[in-house]
Amino acid sequence: MNRHLVIFQPSGQRGRIETGKNLLEVSRELGADIESICGGKKTCGKCKVRVQEGFFERHGIESRSTHLTPLSDEEKDLLMTEEIAKGYRLACAAQVLGDVLLFVPEESRGGKQVVRKEVTLRKITLNPAVKTYAVRLEKPTLTDPLGDYERLLKALEEQHGLKGLTASRPMLAKLPQALRDGDWQASVAVWMGREILNVAPGAYMRCFGLAIDIGTTTIAGYLCDLASGEVAAVHSLMNPQVTYGEDVMSRVTYIMTHEGGLAELHREIIGALNEIVAAVSRNAGTDPADILELCVVGNTVMHHIFLDISPVGIGVSPFVPVIQSSVDLKASELGIRVNECANVHVLPIEAGFVGADNVGVLIAEAPYEKDETQLIIDIGTNGEILVGNREKLLSASCATGPALEGAHIKFGMRAAPGAIERVSIKPENLEVEYRIISGADGELARGICGSGIIDAIAEMFRAGVVEKSGRMSKSLNSPRLVQDGKTREFILVPAEKTAIGKNITIATGDVRAVQLAKSAIYAGSKILMKKLGIEKIDRVVLAGAFGTYIDRTCAMLMGMFPDCPIENVIAVGNAAGDGARMALLDVNKRREADEQARRVEYVELTLEKEFEREFVEAMHFPHMIDQFPSLEGLLPKQEDRK
Amino acid sequence: MNRHLVIFQPSGQRGRIETGKNLLEVSRELGADIESICGGKKTCGKCKVRVQEGFFERHGIESRSTHLTPLSDEEKDLLMTEEIAKGYRLACAAQVLGDVLLFVPEESRGGKQVVRKEVTLRKITLNPAVKTYAVRLEKPTLTDPLGDYERLLKALEEQHGLKGLTASRPMLAKLPQALRDGDWQASVAVWMGREILNVAPGAYMRCFGLAIDIGTTTIAGYLCDLASGEVAAVHSLMNPQVTYGEDVMSRVTYIMTHEGGLAELHREIIGALNEIVAAVSRNAGTDPADILELCVVGNTVMHHIFLDISPVGIGVSPFVPVIQSSVDLKASELGIRVNECANVHVLPIEAGFVGADNVGVLIAEAPYEKDETQLIIDIGTNGEILVGNREKLLSASCATGPALEGAHIKFGMRAAPGAIERVSIKPENLEVEYRIISGADGELARGICGSGIIDAIAEMFRAGVVEKSGRMSKSLNSPRLVQDGKTREFILVPAEKTAIGKNITIATGDVRAVQLAKSAIYAGSKILMKKLGIEKIDRVVLAGAFGTYIDRTCAMLMGMFPDCPIENVIAVGNAAGDGARMALLDVNKRREADEQARRVEYVELTLEKEFEREFVEAMHFPHMIDQFPSLEGLLPKQEDRK
Repeated sequence: MNRHLVIFQPSGQRGRIETGKNLLEVSRELGADIESICGGKKTCGKCKVRVQEGFFERHGIESRSTHLTPLSDEEKDLLMTEEIAKGYRLACAAQVLGDVLLFVPEESRGGKQVVRKEVTLRKITLNPAVKTYAVRLEKPTLTDPLGDYERLLKALEEQHGLKGLTASRPMLAKLPQALRDGDWQASVAVWMGREILNVAPGAYMRCFGLAIDIGTTTIAGYLCDLASGEVAAVHSLMNPQVTYGEDVMSRVTYIMTHEGGLAELHREIIGALNEIVAAVSRNAGTDPADILELCVVGNTVMHHIFLDISPVGIGVSPFVPVIQSSVDLKASELGIRVNECANVHVLPIEAGFVGADNVGVLIAEAPYEKDETQLIIDIGTNGEILVGNREKLLSASCATGPALEGAHIKFGMRAAPGAIERVSIKPENLEVEYRIISGADGELARGICGSGIIDAIAEMFRAGVVEKSGRMSKSLNSPRLVQDGKTREFILVPAEKTAIGKNITIATGDVRAVQLAKSAIYAGSKILMKKLGIEKIDRVVLAGAFGTYIDRTCAMLMGMFPDCPIENVIAVGNAAGDGARMALLDVNKRREADEQARRVEYVELTLEKEFEREFVEAMHFPHMIDQFPSLEGLLPKQEDRK
Repeated sequence: MNRHLVIFQPSGQRGRIETGKNLLEVSRELGADIESICGGKKTCGKCKVRVQEGFFERHGIESRSTHLTPLSDEEKDLLMTEEIAKGYRLACAAQVLGDVLLFVPEESRGGKQVVRKEVTLRKITLNPAVKTYAVRLEKPTLTDPLGDYERLLKALEEQHGLKGLTASRPMLAKLPQALRDGDWQASVAVWMGREILNVAPGAYMRCFGLAIDIGTTTIAGYLCDLASGEVAAVHSLMNPQVTYGEDVMSRVTYIMTHEGGLAELHREIIGALNEIVAAVSRNAGTDPADILELCVVGNTVMHHIFLDISPVGIGVSPFVPVIQSSVDLKASELGIRVNECANVHVLPIEAGFVGADNVGVLIAEAPYEKDETQLIIDIGTNGEILVGNREKLLSASCATGPALEGAHIKFGMRAAPGAIERVSIKPENLEVEYRIISGADGELARGICGSGIIDAIAEMFRAGVVEKSGRMSKSLNSPRLVQDGKTREFILVPAEKTAIGKNITIATGDVRAVQLAKSAIYAGSKILMKKLGIEKIDRVVLAGAFGTYIDRTCAMLMGMFPDCPIENVIAVGNAAGDGARMALLDVNKRREADEQARRVEYVELTLEKEFEREFVEAMHFPHMIDQFPSLEGLLPKQEDRK
């Protein structure tokens, strides 16, 4: 049966689909979760998706909307003319005829936590650790009774020049059957030109790799065909450890205070990985045993727990990891249910708080190959920064706290349906416009997610509601500015327009929490810049899901990082995951990771004499002293002069 | 408390024992199984043991009978004067005061299967794969937060010049605790100068290795202290696979005909190994986690089953093993309960029927270092022969069948109590004298074991009962020569003197079975000699338990091997086990094993044109044509000419 590649953006779910299935069915099959009220009866019009052009062209594959069945009458009724012009379709009505890339607009997304770990399209060199070879062997006879393994080695040397190969026991165990089933013709997978991982009868073997990004909150897996480098399937899920605590420190504490806690958290990660393995295998129509390598990134604590190694040393001064170097081990040793000879490559970590995820970002962005000086900010549950260029690179860990992710904020919430994600405030009348992450029309706000908080506070600053110091203005008079006990609050959404029946506000404490977070990043960046002897950043790279969704002008306006031309502030999405994928597909990237992780100098900010002063100065919006020529005309008037 | 080394020969059980225990208690503790009827009341006099001199002297340890309490009155009563002079004691009366080596005579051995896998005293160079190092590390600080593992590597390089070391995950997992428990002083075990296997707090670490000989019938383990090379404990037990069939082919058949049969037989071996691990650890007063390496030998089928690899290819033409090379893998991968990082080194095999046990014999005897031409015969359940010298070595596998071990012989039995193990026949009156393996006085014969069969048939031939052709004499008249249906039998023990109530006889069929077995060895040896272009063997080496117990003159008399001066026919005991122990203690022996196993040319006897003729000629006692100058005067008269 003919199968077509269908990809849903921004979630990245993808898979090979039979001709004729409608996109709503496909979305369920791939777990992309598109909203539908009528249940596919073509009556509610909620399951809008947009056909994306350009992706397949870039990959040399022809793709047009003709890869779907023609517009139906129901669609003509339920879609607006401009939506049709932009390529919108109803998922329940459009059937798959060919490869197609779709964008699911926020209003069509289902009600689940929006886990956003997308596949970024980066140029990746294909030079994987695992390569396959076809061989033909002489059939043994009484006068030539050489062992199967030695016979295979001989053929691999004669036919492919491969020498000094080893093999592990499970490969040897399957060898005799494979050779005889293929009548002495076999295909062989070799890892790093050193170890035979797999053998199959006949000349062809499927060979996949899985890149894994273990985040504190989300675990994402990218299944890649190691022969073509193509992403065959993507699957993310919540890190099941969140039930043990939202941030890494609470997980470390759990391990310190619970007998067997490490084993427990380790099992949670492995369980989640096995779910991902099963999901991507199903979606790509392949077998878990065809996965011959995994490449893993994660912050230091996730890295240690994944390896079943105590992260306790990372949690207490002097914050020492057990191992920094990259690790290669057998997936079977960890209980990961892929091919039993598969290797797991774990990228190195830089220091106690700068993990393998940051090394992923490092090799994805490769600032060490550039002349321009970059500031790379990776904000997950913790904040890591990298500053430098081909001359020198410095890294630091910033204690941002979870405020930027919506935690410890009065009405903060995750980026889930009902969360305010965009805010703008008219300075003249303090009228608030906002957009919420929503699955249905008329959905009411439930809280504010990270990007909404940045927007709200930057806009409040621009409108004069919040002063440069972070204090709520006392001179402004507006029904939106209210006193709640001792603290002053700004009403973003009045109670009658919320789903929770009370005002959604930004309180003084919220502003303070965000100030502490942004100041940590700003001050850290300044310390690293000073150490490098530079005064200006050429480019700011925002990595991570958070960076993808925040408004870069708002971020600069509130002083999250030093001045830089706005157009040079770029979001690169899940660069850590991209780094994992690049290291999976190109062994030279692993070498680069090992070298650069050692080369990056880690700066322990708490030991820096100037850090405290820098931190205090950076508490101001956007900064107490520093100038922001790039924000010309955007800063509030009273702030235009210094 | 003071503890002394006590060793029981020939079983090899040993352990460290508290001062004051009597030898009967010690024998029970170590599992040496000494007979006692009175239960230690010093009245029956059955628990005789002989104090061996010389062993400790050779090892530079003073040892005299003064290491036991003085002779008691009961002993003076119950032991004969000449027994006392020879160093006999009663186990129940003699108490341990110091190190002591004891020989348990056959009459004192308990009723269990006599599993005889002794420790031979060979000169072994001490150069083990696992070496330990003491290191002192700098304590980490905020300005020096290097990871534990990298810190350890740094110290090992600075203090011991060790570079490029790796470590497996379980070692990393225990590293942080070990370093902190020892206040940053640690001892480290390194395998092959490459991999860190173990780390312990403080400057000293116990480090043991276990040599394993997996025989078809018996599995023996030799626990060695890798720091001193000394054997710390020995334990053997029956291969639990015997319930699946006595010989290797029946095990292969079981695997071919039973789904999951391989896994089942594999589990049996691993279970037995874990029993041995527990026993030797207990006897040596150490922990299984202190065992950091295993070195394993076994015939090809045992080798494959041990590795959980199908031996089916070995069982059918063209008799191809899955792997011939030596293998290194983690003990944990096989479920062997020693240190979880411990390595298992499996010696290489030579060919389909010439296994790692034979490679063990090869490196123990090292014929490749000698000018004289040796014929090494290793008779276990199968027969392997090696012929050659430093110039060239040939090997072959001889289908001896199990006759030489007492199977397929009418009254054949294992070397267990009640088995006739020595026979002599007076030519003048055909009177038979015999000795049985016994645990108690007046024990009656139950059957004949391997060495008894060789003796009996050789003596029958010498006495003219059996003719050169193997036919039972028809000219001789004796009440011992009887007709049982169609076959003629020779009565060794009349019914009234047996425990089984019937005549124990040697029948024509028994003679035929032994002829087939000895002829296979003889003909194989001749073929190899011809291929080497030699006419005379300088030395015959009989390896294996069987070789230890047979009478070398009888063996030559019946023509088990070509002529050789009797004094140059030597038994070397369990040379395979010795080879395993040598390879455990000296990595150069592993290199030798790899090189020599490849260098030995395997000759498939069934492909040799002359084999059939040689085989037929060798059926005769001692041979149809060949001369035996070394047997001058020993051959029966009618055979002296020609």
